[in-house]
Amino acid sequence: MDKKMDILFTADSNYVKYISVVLKSLAVNDSNYNCCVHLIHDDLNAEQEENFRKMCSNYGYTGHTYRINDQLLQQAPVNKHYSSAMYYRLLAVEILPETLKKVIYLDPDLLIINPLHPLWEMPMEEYAFLAASHTEDHEVIDNLNRVRLNTDTPYYNTGVLVMDLEKARNLIQKQDIYAYIEKNENIMFLPDQDIFNALYGNVTKAIPDEIWNYDARKYPQYYVSSKGLFDEKWIIQNTAILHFCGKHKPWNSEQHSWFHYIYWHYMQLTERNEP
Amino acid sequence: MDKKMDILFTADSNYVKYISVVLKSLAVNDSNYNCCVHLIHDDLNAEQEENFRKMCSNYGYTGHTYRINDQLLQQAPVNKHYSSAMYYRLLAVEILPETLKKVIYLDPDLLIINPLHPLWEMPMEEYAFLAASHTEDHEVIDNLNRVRLNTDTPYYNTGVLVMDLEKARNLIQKQDIYAYIEKNENIMFLPDQDIFNALYGNVTKAIPDEIWNYDARKYPQYYVSSKGLFDEKWIIQNTAILHFCGKHKPWNSEQHSWFHYIYWHYMQLTERNEP
Repeated sequence: MDKKMDILFTADSNYVKYISVVLKSLAVNDSNYNCCVHLIHDDLNAEQEENFRKMCSNYGYTGHTYRINDQLLQQAPVNKHYSSAMYYRLLAVEILPETLKKVIYLDPDLLIINPLHPLWEMPMEEYAFLAASHTEDHEVIDNLNRVRLNTDTPYYNTGVLVMDLEKARNLIQKQDIYAYIEKNENIMFLPDQDIFNALYGNVTKAIPDEIWNYDARKYPQYYVSSKGLFDEKWIIQNTAILHFCGKHKPWNSEQHSWFHYIYWHYMQLTERNEP
Repeated sequence: MDKKMDILFTADSNYVKYISVVLKSLAVNDSNYNCCVHLIHDDLNAEQEENFRKMCSNYGYTGHTYRINDQLLQQAPVNKHYSSAMYYRLLAVEILPETLKKVIYLDPDLLIINPLHPLWEMPMEEYAFLAASHTEDHEVIDNLNRVRLNTDTPYYNTGVLVMDLEKARNLIQKQDIYAYIEKNENIMFLPDQDIFNALYGNVTKAIPDEIWNYDARKYPQYYVSSKGLFDEKWIIQNTAILHFCGKHKPWNSEQHSWFHYIYWHYMQLTERNEP
């Protein structure tokens, strides 16, 4: 395991158990890579932080935790619709050590089913970010988002985000973000994702969502739009990241698909492997 | 990995790739156990034997191959309906080294999805074998089999078989097997399984098939007979061995279930991990 990836999560203590499933699936599917796992949070106590690091080392990984202190977000607009946690993903550029040059941010509600490292090794070119869009170029919703946010780029899902930290450190300014929120509060549906798209969509390179951020709710749409190419076998052989977007998570939904059964299998592997 | 299991396969060279999937699934699901993997065969050449051992060591396992020589089965009845390969499972008692005291025989068309070691550690009591039946006690087919084979025990599926080799060495005599075949040739449907049931059913302890030998064709039957208990989540949390019995294998069928998708995922993991 001489190769290394840096992975970032931002989550509260309730989500650590799902991060564990992501890491187990990463360990099984990319067994030749070592990982440094960075967790930005605001509510884990010292024991929970220690447990997180133990859990990481259980997979052969190194865990680092970063507790947000109140000062960092002193001037941030926060209201009942969005908490300060929404800033962590973007402000990772300030929080993570300066020696870190690149990181893959992952939402906790996803599952790795093929190697992640080709994403890690993908050239960034002149871009600061790599991300996938869940809407096709000509879809109405994408155009609505472009009008709404005044962008001419696809509307990116920020659940999987490769960040070139060196470029992003120069780009991301807290004041820009705060100013954007104050001005656009009323038009934001998904605040953190909207901010990312509005402010940084133009320095983001699109990567294919069917590989790197497959929306597990949308099997029929993928199947039809690919003219039947993206069937179960294709997904199992090609998709690296299944993303359980939306309200119906594998761990709380009443309606389940085979994607959920695979998730449950990894949940079971994870629970058995916990120390 | 201080604990060890001995696993036995008997297969021809075409099936080695499926054994590899079984071993990958075993390695992922029972990662604290080391395994010695014994393969009894009659058609692998020296290079294929070496590849088999390499594949095993790829999972941290030790591979041993045993080529059957013609003399062992010189007097065995063989005809167009059954080949000499059908004897290997039972004659493992003669072929495997005498130092070996116990082995778990596994068919190559199955998948491990929970730890196997509780089966390895299950007390044998006075029995020589542990096996599961795919037919419930009062099913017509089980009674037919009992009449057909003149037994009063369940009809065992021999796809998963724990063998107490010390007891079995005293019990299994080639001449008994040959004599049984010559006498009963016309009533045998599945020769090796029929022989096992007729001659050794009474020294076999029944283990639950829903855990140790789940027939992946029969989801509705399991679900109904368990009054809804054996649903997808129960299977994922409890079943250790999925057995893809019958003609429609995950690798050749046109009709697929979610069991097949999980198999495909392990097939994909296996192919990626091959040296």
